Amino acid sequence: MNDIALQTRMANALRLLTVDAIERARSGHPGAPMGMADIAQALWTRHLKHDPGEPQWPDRDRFVLSNGHASMLLYALLHLSGYDLPISELMRFRQLHSKTPGHPEVGITPGVETTTGPLGQGLGNAVGMALAEKLLAAEFNRPGLAIVDHHTYVFVGDGCLMEGISHEACSLAGTLRLSKLIAVYDDNGISIDGEVDGWFNDDTQGRFEAYGWNVIADVDGHDPDAIDAALRQARSQAGDANGKPTLICCRTIIGRGSPNKAGTEAVHGAPLGADEIAQTRGQLRWPHAAFEIPDDLRRAWDARERGADARTQWQRLFARYEKSHPELAKDFMRRQRGELPEDFGHQVQALLDRQLAATTETATRKASQQALDALGPHLPELLGGSADLTGSNLTQFKGSRSLTRDHAGNYLHYGVREFGMAAAMNGIALHGGYIPYGGTFLTFSDYSRNAVRMAALMKLRVIHVFTHDSIGLGEDGPTHQSVEHAASLRLIPGLDVWRPADAVETAVAWRCAIEQRQAPSALLLSRQNTAVLEHAGDAADSIARGGYVLRELGTARVLLMATGSEVGIASAAQQLLFEQGVGSRLVSMPCTSRFDRQSADYRRRVLPPELPALAIEAGHPDFWRKYVGRCGAVMGVDRFGESAPAAELYRWFKLTAGDVATSAHELVLEHAKAHPRAPVEDFEIVLSCN
Amino acid sequence: MNDIALQTRMANALRLLTVDAIERARSGHPGAPMGMADIAQALWTRHLKHDPGEPQWPDRDRFVLSNGHASMLLYALLHLSGYDLPISELMRFRQLHSKTPGHPEVGITPGVETTTGPLGQGLGNAVGMALAEKLLAAEFNRPGLAIVDHHTYVFVGDGCLMEGISHEACSLAGTLRLSKLIAVYDDNGISIDGEVDGWFNDDTQGRFEAYGWNVIADVDGHDPDAIDAALRQARSQAGDANGKPTLICCRTIIGRGSPNKAGTEAVHGAPLGADEIAQTRGQLRWPHAAFEIPDDLRRAWDARERGADARTQWQRLFARYEKSHPELAKDFMRRQRGELPEDFGHQVQALLDRQLAATTETATRKASQQALDALGPHLPELLGGSADLTGSNLTQFKGSRSLTRDHAGNYLHYGVREFGMAAAMNGIALHGGYIPYGGTFLTFSDYSRNAVRMAALMKLRVIHVFTHDSIGLGEDGPTHQSVEHAASLRLIPGLDVWRPADAVETAVAWRCAIEQRQAPSALLLSRQNTAVLEHAGDAADSIARGGYVLRELGTARVLLMATGSEVGIASAAQQLLFEQGVGSRLVSMPCTSRFDRQSADYRRRVLPPELPALAIEAGHPDFWRKYVGRCGAVMGVDRFGESAPAAELYRWFKLTAGDVATSAHELVLEHAKAHPRAPVEDFEIVLSCN
Repeated sequence: MNDIALQTRMANALRLLTVDAIERARSGHPGAPMGMADIAQALWTRHLKHDPGEPQWPDRDRFVLSNGHASMLLYALLHLSGYDLPISELMRFRQLHSKTPGHPEVGITPGVETTTGPLGQGLGNAVGMALAEKLLAAEFNRPGLAIVDHHTYVFVGDGCLMEGISHEACSLAGTLRLSKLIAVYDDNGISIDGEVDGWFNDDTQGRFEAYGWNVIADVDGHDPDAIDAALRQARSQAGDANGKPTLICCRTIIGRGSPNKAGTEAVHGAPLGADEIAQTRGQLRWPHAAFEIPDDLRRAWDARERGADARTQWQRLFARYEKSHPELAKDFMRRQRGELPEDFGHQVQALLDRQLAATTETATRKASQQALDALGPHLPELLGGSADLTGSNLTQFKGSRSLTRDHAGNYLHYGVREFGMAAAMNGIALHGGYIPYGGTFLTFSDYSRNAVRMAALMKLRVIHVFTHDSIGLGEDGPTHQSVEHAASLRLIPGLDVWRPADAVETAVAWRCAIEQRQAPSALLLSRQNTAVLEHAGDAADSIARGGYVLRELGTARVLLMATGSEVGIASAAQQLLFEQGVGSRLVSMPCTSRFDRQSADYRRRVLPPELPALAIEAGHPDFWRKYVGRCGAVMGVDRFGESAPAAELYRWFKLTAGDVATSAHELVLEHAKAHPRAPVEDFEIVLSCN
Repeated sequence: MNDIALQTRMANALRLLTVDAIERARSGHPGAPMGMADIAQALWTRHLKHDPGEPQWPDRDRFVLSNGHASMLLYALLHLSGYDLPISELMRFRQLHSKTPGHPEVGITPGVETTTGPLGQGLGNAVGMALAEKLLAAEFNRPGLAIVDHHTYVFVGDGCLMEGISHEACSLAGTLRLSKLIAVYDDNGISIDGEVDGWFNDDTQGRFEAYGWNVIADVDGHDPDAIDAALRQARSQAGDANGKPTLICCRTIIGRGSPNKAGTEAVHGAPLGADEIAQTRGQLRWPHAAFEIPDDLRRAWDARERGADARTQWQRLFARYEKSHPELAKDFMRRQRGELPEDFGHQVQALLDRQLAATTETATRKASQQALDALGPHLPELLGGSADLTGSNLTQFKGSRSLTRDHAGNYLHYGVREFGMAAAMNGIALHGGYIPYGGTFLTFSDYSRNAVRMAALMKLRVIHVFTHDSIGLGEDGPTHQSVEHAASLRLIPGLDVWRPADAVETAVAWRCAIEQRQAPSALLLSRQNTAVLEHAGDAADSIARGGYVLRELGTARVLLMATGSEVGIASAAQQLLFEQGVGSRLVSMPCTSRFDRQSADYRRRVLPPELPALAIEAGHPDFWRKYVGRCGAVMGVDRFGESAPAAELYRWFKLTAGDVATSAHELVLEHAKAHPRAPVEDFEIVLSCN
C-alpha cells in the first residue's frame, strides 16, 4: 500500500467515524466532514503543530473550524490524533453532557480552540488569533528567540464566505498583513438550499485578492499532495514582513464517499441512513465495523510523539529565553495564565481615590478614558480599539499606540466593523496574552450581538465599551439612540452589563471587568455629563456588588432605583421629595447581574420588599419589573427616541428630576391607599405605570 | 457664467445650506455633504426621475442615502428641488419634531425613501428596492407598456463599504443581476478615526467586479461632467437582460470648500464654526447670507415642472395599460396601496376551519408552512425567502417559484445572509408592491437584529419567520438554541413578536402579520411538534388579542401562562393539577405586545391580579416578571442551552408537565401561607423563584 492509499484510508477513517457517530446520534452534518476529510488529513498530519498531550501549550498552531457544523470532523481528528477524547465520547455525539456536543465548544473538548456554529464567526476568531500571534511575537520575540511563532488555520465553507462578517474580518486581515493566517475554503458548490450558483457566485479569488490576500486557487481538495503543496506554499511566505494571509480554495465534493448523496444538499445536515452507510463502506472499501479503526491507521494518525517533540523543542527555546530575558519570560507566562500585574490593586486604588475626590461633572465615557489613562500604562496586556469611533468612545488612552502593519502597538483601529471587531476580540482572548476591549455606540451592539453572546457562552474576558448609551446622545436621533439595548444585553446569560452613574462607578466597572477572568463585560457609557455623587468610604465594595444604597434621605417611604445618567436625576428627585416631606432611599444598580449574584439577605437589605419601588432608566421599562414588581412603577422609554438636544429629550420623555419626584409622590400615595397596612398587588397600577 | 460655473454654484448651495444648518443646530456632519455635493447635483438635476409634487408616484427612481449622517445633503436637495420642505425646516435641523431629524427618516420628510444612519443598511435597502423593481416589472410590464421602469440610486461611504452587510447585499445584487441599481461611492479616504488606509485598503473595484458588478473607477467626484458621463454609462446597460449593477467610484475630498478642514476627519461630524464658515464662504465665493439662495439657483434647482412632466407621461402610459389590461392595472394599484385581495378573509377562514378541526400534533414551523400553502397562492404580493434554511424554516409554499436571474418568481434564496436579507426585505417593503417574509433560525435574529429594529422604526410590513425557537431544537446545542431571543425581540418598540402554540395560533399569527400594515412581525416557531389544543369557537378573535384564557379547569387557585411549545406542557400540567385537586386557569400569550394594547379591563379579566401566576416559557425568565410580579414564579431557561435530544433537554431544564405541576402546587401553597386573605408581596419568593 503506497502513501497515497494510506492517506486516503486515513481520511476515510474520518469519514466513517463521522457517518457512524451521526447515525448513532440520529443527528448531525456528515457532508462537510466527508468533503474536507482529505484536506484535514493533509493539514493535521503534515503541517499542524500541536501536542495532543498538552492542548494548551502556548506556541501551538491554532486550528479553527469556522464551519462548525462539521464538528464530527474535528472530533474524529482529535480522537485519532491522541487527544483525551476516547471513542466512547464519539459514540455519545450530541448527547447531554458528552464531550462531543453538536457544534464544537471550547472548554468542553480538549483541543477545541473556539466555539463555532454561527457561520463566519470562526473566521473572525481566527483573525483575532492571528493578530494576537503577530502582536505577541512583536512584543516578546528576541533575535534567535522566537518564542511566539505559530500559524492559525481556519476551515471555511460557502456559508462563512456569504456572511458579512467574512468581509469585515478578511478585509481587516489583509490590511494588517496577517501572513500566518491560512484559510482553507471548502468550495463544494452546495449549501442547504442546494447549488449555490443561484445565490452565491462571487469570484472568491478576485474578492480575496482585493483584500490583499494570497489566493491559491483551484486546488483539488481530494488530492492530498495538491493540498500539501498549497499549504507549503502558504507557509513559505508567512514569515515575510510583507507577507499576506492566504486563502486556499479547494474544490471538493460534499459528502464524498456516499454513493448516492455525495454532491447534493441531501448530505449536508442529516444522517445518511443505514443503507447508504453500508454502500459508503462499499465505495470506500472500508471493511471495519462502526467505530473500529485498524491499528495501522491509529498509528499513522497518532500525533502524540511528534507533538511532544515539538512542544519540548519549544520548551528548550523558552528555557534559553528565560535565561537571557528573565523579566520578559516572567511577564509572558503571567499573561499566558491571565493573571494581572501585582500592582494592579494599587493602581486601581489610586484611581478610585482620585475619582472619589473629583468634583466636576463628567460623562461616563470620559470617566472611562480616565480609568484607561490610569490603568492602561500598567497593563501591557490591554489591547484596545474601536470600530471607527475612537474620538467618540474615548477608548484610546494616553501613551497608547495605534498599531498598523508593523504589528507594534496596543490600540487597533478596527474600522467600521462592529461584528468583525467583536469576533476578533473573542479570538484575541482565546489566543491568550491579551485582554481585548473595543468600542462602538451602544445601538450598534446590535451589529455585534451574536459575537457578544459567543463571548458569554465561551466565558471570555473581553470588554465591550458601548458609549452614547441612551436618548442622552441627543441630535443623532432614533437610529442612534439605544432604547432597548441595555435591557436586551442584560438577557445574555453570563454577560455583566455595567451602566455606571459617575466616575467612581465607572472606575469600579473597569476594575471588575478586568478582574473578571471568566466572563465578558459590557460598559454602557453616557455621551453627556453625569452628576457627581456623594459616596461612602466603602463605595468601591458596594459598587462591585452591582447594586447598593447610595443615599437614604429621611425615613424612606419610597425606593428609587436607577442606573447610569439617571442616578443623578433620581438623586435630584430625592432632594425634591425630601423638601416635600417625603423620605426615600436611592439605590444605584450599576450591574444587575452582579446584584443578582449577591446573597438573598444582601438583596433584601438593599431592596426591602415593603417599600414601593420606582425604577428610572432611560431605556425599555419592562426589564425593571423584576425589581419593582407589578405594583411598583418604572419610568423609562418604551418608544423609539427622537432627534433633538439631549436636555430637551429628557423633558420630552418625562425623565427630569421633577417628573421623577412627581411619580414617586404618586406612588407613595397610591401605595398608602392600596395598602393601609401591608403592600398588596394592585392591578390598576400594574397596567397603568408602563 | 457658463454651465460648469452654474453647476458648481448649484453644488455650493448644497454645501452652504449644509454648513449653515449644522452651525445653527450646533450638531451634524458637514463632511460628506460637502464632499458629495457635486455628485448629488449631477445625479439630481440630470438623471433622477422624481416629482417633488408627488413623492409617492410609483415609477419614480428611488434614491437612498446609505451614509445617512450626510442627512443635510438630502434635506438641501429636497428643499431646492421643490419638495414640501421649507427653509424654516432646514433652520430647525435636528430639533425636536422638525422635518429634518439628525438622520433621514422615512415618513417624516417628503422624498426620504428610507431611514438611514446605521451604516451599510441603506445599501441593503437599495438592493431590496432594485429587486422589487425587477420583479414588479417582470410581473406587470407588457410589450410597449413598461409601467415599472425606474432606477435605484444609492450613495455609500467608506463606512458602508467596510460593514459586512455591504458584502451580503452586493454579492446578492451581483448574482441577481440587478442592473438598475447604481451605487455611487464617496471615496474620500477618510473615516472618523482618520485616513482609512490604516484599516481599510481594499481594492474596491476588484471586490465589486468579483461580485459581478460593473465598476466605473476613478471618477473625479468634483467634476460634474465626469460624474454625468459615469451615470450615463451606468444607465446605458441597465436595461440589458444580462446587465449588471454598477458601482461608480468617485474620488472626493471630504468637506470640500472648507479651507482648513477639508480632507481631514475634523470635518466629518462637527459644525465648522463661525470662523471656518466665513472662510468657506470666501473660498467658494458665496456672498449670500445663511439660508439665502439666489433666485437663479432656485430656478436651476427647481425640479417640479420636469418632475410633473415625467409623472404625467407615466400616468398616460398607465392609462393605456389600464385600458388594455384592466385587471392587471387594478391589481397593480391595489398592491401599490398595500391593500389585500378581497377574498383574503375567506381564505383565512377556510384555513382556520381546517386547523381548528385538525387532530395531529405538528411543529409550528410546519403549521406555518400550511398557512403559507393556504394563503400564498391567493396573495401574489407575498415575496418569500430564507437565508439558506428553506427546508428547515419551511418557508416555501406549494407552487411558489424560486426566483433567479430571470427575476420571475416569488421566493428568494437569500443565501447565508441574515442581515442582508432583513435589510433587503425592508427595501422591498419600502418600494411597495410586495409583502416580504424571510426565514432563519431564531438565534440568528442576532445577525439581522438592527434591520429588524429599523423595520420597526420605519413601521414596515415585513414578516420574519424565526424557526427553531428554543432548546427544543435539540442536538445543535447552545450556539443554535435561543434562550434570550424571544424576550429580547419583544423589547424592540413596535415589533409584534408571535410565539404561537399550535396550528390554530400559527394561522392567526400569519393573518395578523399580513394584515398589520404599519408594523413588522416576527413569528417564533418550533422545530418540534406541539400539542393539539382545544379551542373555543371564537378562538381566532381571542388569539388575535395576543393573550387569552385557553382553559379553566376547576376553580382556579393558580394562573398558568405560557407561549408556544410550552402551552401544551402547561396544559398537561393543568390536567395533573386538576387530578391533584388544584384548579387553575391556563392563559396562552402568543403575542404580548398585542395583549398589552388591549383595554385594561380585558387584561385584568385575563390576568386577575389576585391569582398567583406562574409563567412558563423555554426562554429567559426575566421578561415574565412584567406579568407575574415579584411574588409569582417563572419557569424558564436563564442559562445557555445544551446539546442533546429535545425531550431530554426539557427534562434537564425542568420544563416537563410534571415540573410545572409541582411548581404550580408549591406556588399555591406559598401563596396561601403568605396571604391568608389577600395577595402580598413576599420577598423570599421573589428572590428564589428566578
